[in-house]
Amino acid sequence: MKFHTRKWVKPEDLNPNKSLFGGRLLAWIDEEAALYSVVQLENPHVVTKYMSEINFMASAKQGDIVEIGIEVVKFGTTSLVLNCEVRNKMTHETIITVDKITMVNLDENGVPKPHGKTKVEYVRDRIAGQNK
Amino acid sequence: MKFHTRKWVKPEDLNPNKSLFGGRLLAWIDEEAALYSVVQLENPHVVTKYMSEINFMASAKQGDIVEIGIEVVKFGTTSLVLNCEVRNKMTHETIITVDKITMVNLDENGVPKPHGKTKVEYVRDRIAGQNK
Amino acid sequence: MKFHTRKWVKPEDLNPNKSLFGGRLLAWIDEEAALYSVVQLENPHVVTKYMSEINFMASAKQGDIVEIGIEVVKFGTTSLVLNCEVRNKMTHETIITVDKITMVNLDENGVPKPHGKTKVEYVRDRIAGQNK
Amino acid sequence: MKFHTRKWVKPEDLNPNKSLFGGRLLAWIDEEAALYSVVQLENPHVVTKYMSEINFMASAKQGDIVEIGIEVVKFGTTSLVLNCEVRNKMTHETIITVDKITMVNLDENGVPKPHGKTKVEYVRDRIAGQNK
Amino acid sequence: MKFHTRKWVKPEDLNPNKSLFGGRLLAWIDEEAALYSVVQLENPHVVTKYMSEINFMASAKQGDIVEIGIEVVKFGTTSLVLNCEVRNKMTHETIITVDKITMVNLDENGVPKPHGKTKVEYVRDRIAGQNK
Amino acid sequence: MKFHTRKWVKPEDLNPNKSLFGGRLLAWIDEEAALYSVVQLENPHVVTKYMSEINFMASAKQGDIVEIGIEVVKFGTTSLVLNCEVRNKMTHETIITVDKITMVNLDENGVPKPHGKTKVEYVRDRIAGQNK
Repeated sequence: MKFHTRKWVKPEDLNPNKSLFGGRLLAWIDEEAALYSVVQLENPHVVTKYMSEINFMASAKQGDIVEIGIEVVKFGTTSLVLNCEVRNKMTHETIITVDKITMVNLDENGVPKPHGKTKVEYVRDRIAGQNK
Repeated sequence: MKFHTRKWVKPEDLNPNKSLFGGRLLAWIDEEAALYSVVQLENPHVVTKYMSEINFMASAKQGDIVEIGIEVVKFGTTSLVLNCEVRNKMTHETIITVDKITMVNLDENGVPKPHGKTKVEYVRDRIAGQNK
Repeated sequence: MKFHTRKWVKPEDLNPNKSLFGGRLLAWIDEEAALYSVVQLENPHVVTKYMSEINFMASAKQGDIVEIGIEVVKFGTTSLVLNCEVRNKMTHETIITVDKITMVNLDENGVPKPHGKTKVEYVRDRIAGQNK
Repeated sequence: MKFHTRKWVKPEDLNPNKSLFGGRLLAWIDEEAALYSVVQLENPHVVTKYMSEINFMASAKQGDIVEIGIEVVKFGTTSLVLNCEVRNKMTHETIITVDKITMVNLDENGVPKPHGKTKVEYVRDRIAGQNK
Repeated sequence: MKFHTRKWVKPEDLNPNKSLFGGRLLAWIDEEAALYSVVQLENPHVVTKYMSEINFMASAKQGDIVEIGIEVVKFGTTSLVLNCEVRNKMTHETIITVDKITMVNLDENGVPKPHGKTKVEYVRDRIAGQNK
Repeated sequence: MKFHTRKWVKPEDLNPNKSLFGGRLLAWIDEEAALYSVVQLENPHVVTKYMSEINFMASAKQGDIVEIGIEVVKFGTTSLVLNCEVRNKMTHETIITVDKITMVNLDENGVPKPHGKTKVEYVRDRIAGQNK
């Protein structure tokens, strides 16, 4: 699993008990899943359709640095299924896991359309390909 | 199911495709589950431990009004299990459902402690009780 | 008065003295008045025109749960006049009151137009009516 | 009346009808009244107690620049009464007026205490005074 | 240098070390530079092109009031060069300085266009001029 | 240069001209520099002291994905000097560059203290080292 995006837990991210607000964490995960899909499917019009059960295994406190990892579980015809883990950057302790996040590829009218992708691509390779 | 909190979908709540950002919706649900639990368990120190699978059944657009419903599934010894539905206030169309959200009652040190509750209470009754 | 929307006072809602920022509270009230009017008038294009004097009777602190109550004072021809109270959910203590909030019903060009409503309606009834 | 703080109306400040969200405007006014009082009373512990009626005279749209003016109406013993006007910076058109905003000077325990001020002071003069 | 906009440092503006988050401060400066330019150039379509080196000379803490000063360094043909200083309102201590912020005046298509301005103008004068 | 954190440009990140608000971008950069330093210096108390000149080379629009790259320029005794580039994830087009961002390592009292680091370390290696 590749861990890309990192967040610094600031006062605005806390719940009243002064640990990381779970809702903020879920919003970070959803954004990461969405942008990962946009890059992979080369289509800005992608939506979250489903998340499997979510385990809040540990919390984080102000000043902690968390990083969000995503990997592909499966390429469907119009969908992309992702696996997500958020962990504490300093200790590698797992904060949350979501086994399956299903993202759907949409056309201009918001109807699911085949994306034609079958494996993870790196933007670097795409650009190199364009230069041939 | 009682629907209490309502949200007016504003530009700051949208994803780049101009529908309600899923992460914002998840944050709203988590806050509602937390505050519902704080009221029921009469303890401000409550955390989200688990969410069962989440179905994004419909989206919402700018200017829509959504309302968030919560009901109790089960009172555990140290936990409270909730069911959540978010729907469009105007049409009653369901936007998202989460069958089980497990909240845990904590003591001052962040350790689960029994909450002693077995049924839904209304604050009105508690206050009336205090006046006896 | 019906109390619907609830808010959990989080660090991001505080002023530098660590009580609920009054401006945040006013923003919550304005949103609630607006969405209540949109539902009642069945028109998304509604604006706040006037608020009567506002008394800040008590504050709220981090972790408190506040609920916002709205009731109709009067249906004008193009307007809707509301009464608002915000209170602490746990104690029922009143935090703020606004006797009159005047909302105006606009047409597509932003000009006041008659809304044709004379009493509070419940969405449930409207939907039932449509099914006849 | 002195106009100091200016705001650039950004997408995050809009209501779903794409004009400036009234609640955001009220939050800006409350912050300006608070910081003005903190400066005048030389006490960081100041709270909003009362606002007289509020007239929303015009709206503002994305990209507009609004400026917030405050002037002192009266120095009470423990209070400071302010007058506020918000206007469009380009046209000087008035957006909102609030005749009286009563701010209260508090001690460490949150109890009103006399502030000992009777007229508007400028920080420049205070600093110059210290240098004598 | 004229100091206009003031900010009250609230919990949402802090970094995890509980001093003013530098990123928030930079965002405030960029907004102030942009809106100052929009007013001077009488064109809403202005963008930040360049900032010279930035010195963080002092920090600010929760409850502090900071004010942002801007003055014109130079009128270019399509650009406006500004100088910015942020200081603590109570002590006049300097928090940050940016010697040059270059703003560019754009046409409808986002292409630089001459703005025709050569000196600072006050809106008051423009309006008076219109009334002649 | 390693690119980690990615952002999805949402409506709340736009300026009134509907391109990415420069101030938001600067806030993202400052957060990334801070958290990178916290990880490298193994000290949560790190502050931004200086940024060299900033070139806004291209903008980004709603729905774009930007990624933020950081690399170490130099380890000082109490400081860490970073180089930052933000680029468009899809095209690799550079959006902004900052040659030098100086971060300072502080002790509990906010006084610069030597950090003892001389080269980039990976958390994975540190953890492996602890297991020996």
